[in-house]
Amino acid sequence: MLIQEMTRQESLNLLIRTRLCRLACAQGNQPYVVPFYFAYHNNSLYSASTVGQKIDWMRKNPLVCVEADEVASPHEWMSVVVFGRYEELPDTPEYQSERAVAYNVLQKQVVWWEPGYTKTILHGTERQLVPVFCRINIGQITGHRATP
Amino acid sequence: MLIQEMTRQESLNLLIRTRLCRLACAQGNQPYVVPFYFAYHNNSLYSASTVGQKIDWMRKNPLVCVEADEVASPHEWMSVVVFGRYEELPDTPEYQSERAVAYNVLQKQVVWWEPGYTKTILHGTERQLVPVFCRINIGQITGHRATP
Repeated sequence: MLIQEMTRQESLNLLIRTRLCRLACAQGNQPYVVPFYFAYHNNSLYSASTVGQKIDWMRKNPLVCVEADEVASPHEWMSVVVFGRYEELPDTPEYQSERAVAYNVLQKQVVWWEPGYTKTILHGTERQLVPVFCRINIGQITGHRATP
Repeated sequence: MLIQEMTRQESLNLLIRTRLCRLACAQGNQPYVVPFYFAYHNNSLYSASTVGQKIDWMRKNPLVCVEADEVASPHEWMSVVVFGRYEELPDTPEYQSERAVAYNVLQKQVVWWEPGYTKTILHGTERQLVPVFCRINIGQITGHRATP
């Protein structure tokens, strides 16, 4: 097996065709990683989510890392890692055009209200359905490809 | 779709049958997440890797987070999140028995020398093949299951 670097465009292409990645955020020295559905558009990863631990943490510290991959086997895979910054798109007058962009790309590319925006029963109580529109602005991006 | 919590044993069972997860570590406020092959044994996730960014970061800050999942569709999935602590198993006399445990569980459960322990050409130079045996000691574990 040989592991080699992917070009920036090859890495972006993987993000363009991917819907599910893993998103890591951090509070103090403690990292936290969860599955994350997104849609790529114009150097950003758009998403919609209900408020919870990951949104709480990213509001306090917007530095995030995203990993997306395509694994055919342990010997044949591609993995892209993005260092980026969380930006919330609140329901305020100055963010309306950005929220419209988010809504459009999510509607086209993912069933955006699932699983983030869904009925969730935790500790016996139903979680509120308050969708948060957000995007990860891509900073550094690297990709690696393994071939047999 | 309904999202519900999994029991600790259900979450551990997912780790027992999983080989590939995503591992997040952090340096300062910056998280970093990568694919991670492991084998579960006795409340720890064992792995072998070559030295690189993730090992460098975990040596400086052992707090990590691991996410493992089984995704049938956006409406049917399980996801387990572990907060844990990185522990290196160096080639010293006091760690020989722990290294033997690591070697045994990895040999049984994963092709442990791949992809971490493999020929890698980056920036035109071949990376050294120095395997690092390590484990993630599981602290908090939570799991969620979505059903249609």
